[in-house]
Amino acid sequence: MYRTHTCGELRRNNIGDTVTLAGWVQRSRDMGGLTFVDLRDRYGITQLIFNMETHADLCDMARTLGREYVIQATGKVIERSSKNKNIPTGEIEIEVSILKVLNVSKIPPFTIETETDGGDDLRMKYRYIDLRRQPVRDNIIGRHHVAQAVREYLNSKGFLEIETPFLIKSTPEGARDFIVPSRLNPGEFYALPQSPQTFKQLLMVSGFDKYYQIVRCMRDEDLRADRQPEFTQIDCEMSFVEQEDILLCFSGMINHIFKSIRNIEFANIPRITYDDALLYYGNDKPDIRFEMKLIDFRAVTQLDRFSVFDTAEDVIAICATGAGNYTRKQIDEITEWVKRPQIGMAGMAWMRWQDDGSVKASFEKFYTQAQLVSMIQHARATKDDLVLILAGDAKKSRKAMSELRLEMGNRLKLRDPNTFCPLWVIDFPMFEYDEEHNTWSPAHHPFTSPKVNDMQYLFAEPGRVRANCYDFVLNGVELASGSIRIHDRDMQMTIFKALGLSDKEANFKFGFILKAFEYGAPPHGGIAFGFDRLCALILSGNEYIRDFIAFPKNNAGRDVMLDAPASVEAHQLKELHIEAKI
Amino acid sequence: MYRTHTCGELRRNNIGDTVTLAGWVQRSRDMGGLTFVDLRDRYGITQLIFNMETHADLCDMARTLGREYVIQATGKVIERSSKNKNIPTGEIEIEVSILKVLNVSKIPPFTIETETDGGDDLRMKYRYIDLRRQPVRDNIIGRHHVAQAVREYLNSKGFLEIETPFLIKSTPEGARDFIVPSRLNPGEFYALPQSPQTFKQLLMVSGFDKYYQIVRCMRDEDLRADRQPEFTQIDCEMSFVEQEDILLCFSGMINHIFKSIRNIEFANIPRITYDDALLYYGNDKPDIRFEMKLIDFRAVTQLDRFSVFDTAEDVIAICATGAGNYTRKQIDEITEWVKRPQIGMAGMAWMRWQDDGSVKASFEKFYTQAQLVSMIQHARATKDDLVLILAGDAKKSRKAMSELRLEMGNRLKLRDPNTFCPLWVIDFPMFEYDEEHNTWSPAHHPFTSPKVNDMQYLFAEPGRVRANCYDFVLNGVELASGSIRIHDRDMQMTIFKALGLSDKEANFKFGFILKAFEYGAPPHGGIAFGFDRLCALILSGNEYIRDFIAFPKNNAGRDVMLDAPASVEAHQLKELHIEAKI
Repeated sequence: MYRTHTCGELRRNNIGDTVTLAGWVQRSRDMGGLTFVDLRDRYGITQLIFNMETHADLCDMARTLGREYVIQATGKVIERSSKNKNIPTGEIEIEVSILKVLNVSKIPPFTIETETDGGDDLRMKYRYIDLRRQPVRDNIIGRHHVAQAVREYLNSKGFLEIETPFLIKSTPEGARDFIVPSRLNPGEFYALPQSPQTFKQLLMVSGFDKYYQIVRCMRDEDLRADRQPEFTQIDCEMSFVEQEDILLCFSGMINHIFKSIRNIEFANIPRITYDDALLYYGNDKPDIRFEMKLIDFRAVTQLDRFSVFDTAEDVIAICATGAGNYTRKQIDEITEWVKRPQIGMAGMAWMRWQDDGSVKASFEKFYTQAQLVSMIQHARATKDDLVLILAGDAKKSRKAMSELRLEMGNRLKLRDPNTFCPLWVIDFPMFEYDEEHNTWSPAHHPFTSPKVNDMQYLFAEPGRVRANCYDFVLNGVELASGSIRIHDRDMQMTIFKALGLSDKEANFKFGFILKAFEYGAPPHGGIAFGFDRLCALILSGNEYIRDFIAFPKNNAGRDVMLDAPASVEAHQLKELHIEAKI
Repeated sequence: MYRTHTCGELRRNNIGDTVTLAGWVQRSRDMGGLTFVDLRDRYGITQLIFNMETHADLCDMARTLGREYVIQATGKVIERSSKNKNIPTGEIEIEVSILKVLNVSKIPPFTIETETDGGDDLRMKYRYIDLRRQPVRDNIIGRHHVAQAVREYLNSKGFLEIETPFLIKSTPEGARDFIVPSRLNPGEFYALPQSPQTFKQLLMVSGFDKYYQIVRCMRDEDLRADRQPEFTQIDCEMSFVEQEDILLCFSGMINHIFKSIRNIEFANIPRITYDDALLYYGNDKPDIRFEMKLIDFRAVTQLDRFSVFDTAEDVIAICATGAGNYTRKQIDEITEWVKRPQIGMAGMAWMRWQDDGSVKASFEKFYTQAQLVSMIQHARATKDDLVLILAGDAKKSRKAMSELRLEMGNRLKLRDPNTFCPLWVIDFPMFEYDEEHNTWSPAHHPFTSPKVNDMQYLFAEPGRVRANCYDFVLNGVELASGSIRIHDRDMQMTIFKALGLSDKEANFKFGFILKAFEYGAPPHGGIAFGFDRLCALILSGNEYIRDFIAFPKNNAGRDVMLDAPASVEAHQLKELHIEAKI
């Protein structure tokens, strides 16, 4: 062992001990007669002191140490004259008597500080250096603790961690599979799993009862900002359960994780139906850290007086508490914001109380004061509030208002990253209409069970069928999705049929699970949490995942550190019975 | 929840309770007035009883239940008249008052019993049914417990579980990579990791200090019996350590696992050098559950009397304790065994004491009794022992004698699967000669550090260079391999050069790690355990891994349950810019 202690553990009570430390030179300061070196490792920073009078050779050597040199230093722990109260080792320093350079370092391409001067690209290329910075290091260490908290809870509840295969069969549904040519089976391919969905269901058929895995999944999707081609999920499945059992079990898991990582407990995790989420928040993953619900403004505005409102399919308002005193400039900014192409509205209306008790509105000339008062009272606005109104196509306005609500939440600082408001969204629709392909596709996945009472609509009105499907949402981010599965072969075939899969296709793609359902499949259901995003939210309060992954890919799916993907040698392709066609 | 209790938890003290159970029909017996059903789940078996007199309808229904039907039964816990002492629930039974069939089952293709009538192929195809059999189920549950014991230990020692990427860069060294065509980067490919070797080294460069991961690895090797294209390893790396630190740390891990899984502790895990292992056991993964070391018989036999011995490059004996009374027939059997093509020896010589104090030997006519006595004394044989001798080409005879030693261990029942004898094998050679390609290749991998004192032989006599490399061997099975790594860029380039890699190749394949070594790489080393094999050995005492993997592939690399690999749709290949060339 190159050290007796780490750089984070020496305290007052070690004074007088002779110790050996090893680590990286964070910085060194030459103060004439004395040279100070901050030595860093994963555990902390300890100050080394070199005295020109007593150890001139050592001091000369210390002066040559560059940033990020790896050194080993032996010396006596002494009390520090000017203490540093910001670090736990700040009361002591090491009077070095032996110094050894274990490795040199070039000058790093960016500073190893909390606020670095390195841009994103440079940090990605030198990821191994970026990982030395404390915020990034803390993320990765935090992720370790989140993973162990997940396992602690699930192990204590009798879940079994069971590994499922990575080289499986391609069954493209929704996202594209990554595929792997088989050398031993010319013309055939494995696929990498988009999730272990069918395997965890087979494990339930096998009787394992409670399964989990913290597992890598891969999807060859078109990349968007901060989406990774490989990601990790906490994958869980249970037998002989109903939806309520799963919601309770995983509310417990969320509580256990938050308790161990942030010392937060949620007395109760509220639930909302999908329909209500859309009605009150305009989307299926509402951020409930703040109220500001969507208000149906049709009845109060459509009075045959103002054509913009009268002809609109929907008129929706929010009451932005705390924005009552917004200037015209601020209001204009918000109007410009909703007119951006990403939102795409033609304009925004607004209203508020004036000091004299009358109502001021951007559209006041079209209505009587009594009508305006009736409107603003419908919005339950006080003098502190600003009512914002969007009108137009129902779907578009609702989506735009949902975005505007979040934007107002940001502007009014109602979205504190250290406040956590979890929520279950339940009763999702079974299918969603795929306008591109003109078909119905599963809203969750094709193994989700429909609500029994809605089976009557299956073929006539698929859009009316609700599913035993639920999402876990935290601060407006969908963190998990799950469902009670189909466990009956005939029901599964019926759903495949409703999705437009022929018997032949169903059997080619899912024959093994259809067959498994013939041999005593129990009722079962499960859930999968996005682990990267869960870590990001718990540890930092935001959903930007890249800095919670040790070696992430960039937005083009490239690992710029490895320079992958890359070309391979011709003989490799030949052995695999494939040819590149560029 | 479909149940109030599992099928494994009801006891005498539950008598009188009304309970609901759910599970699979293991068997049912119709005894006229009474019908008994054994209900099974992951936790155990509970007997249900149906009474024709009190519940004729229920009893009729119970008679229709087939094997593996999934049912839910509510009833009263009563004392069982004929108790079953073999199962923990054997003192009670459930007098059923409500019965519900949750799912039917076809007759399973083989019996769900410890000794099944299903052949290997059938069991693989219906793996989800095979997993219901208790021995297979226990393996998978046992594997879960081994994994948790590993994590418990490593977490307690300050190791961080850090995930490394699966879509990486192809750097074929030794085994072939599986590769993954990139849709977004035409003509380029990711590779799947054969191990996270370079990533864990980069994590050390980053300062994470202690890393572990229980991680899937993939190698596109030619398959042999019981080798899987994907396998799991416990992958570990530490900084600022020497070989001794790693051996101690992981001896501790082995002890923790054996203590928690089998309540066994090893006071001391012995060590042997690679050279001694070859000298005394004929191979580098000796089974030390029994002695029977290889004895150099050259000096005592090469007396210019018997040409077979005299002309042999090597003459090696073992002293098989307990085989002194073997019949001629038994000895002939062993002789035939060494003549099999897998062993390939021309013959075998033997000797033993006779009751009259003289020595009997298969080659006695060539030597004097005094010479024979001298030989048998050299082997330290008693009257209980049979000395077996092989002679010929040194390498071949040593290998054959190693095999013969194991075979004699089997015949003499010295290899008890419930006895565990762990061993560290140290001081491995740095390189091995690749006769096929006429080059030196790394015995471990190209990141292993050479012993400093042996650097002088690097280019002149590579075979003499020993490495800071170690294996963990249990009962003759290599369970782990590790080394102290190179952390110096120049040393790494020198080793690449010794391996015949040009600077250009080295930079293309390993540029990122060579670059990382320029920015303060600490001394580091690590180890990787084969997790599948570790589970097989701890849980069953043998090294057959397939039944310790939930969904294994067969010996041709196929998943016969999924029928993978398989053809994919033409548009998938087109999108990936590849063409199949069969």
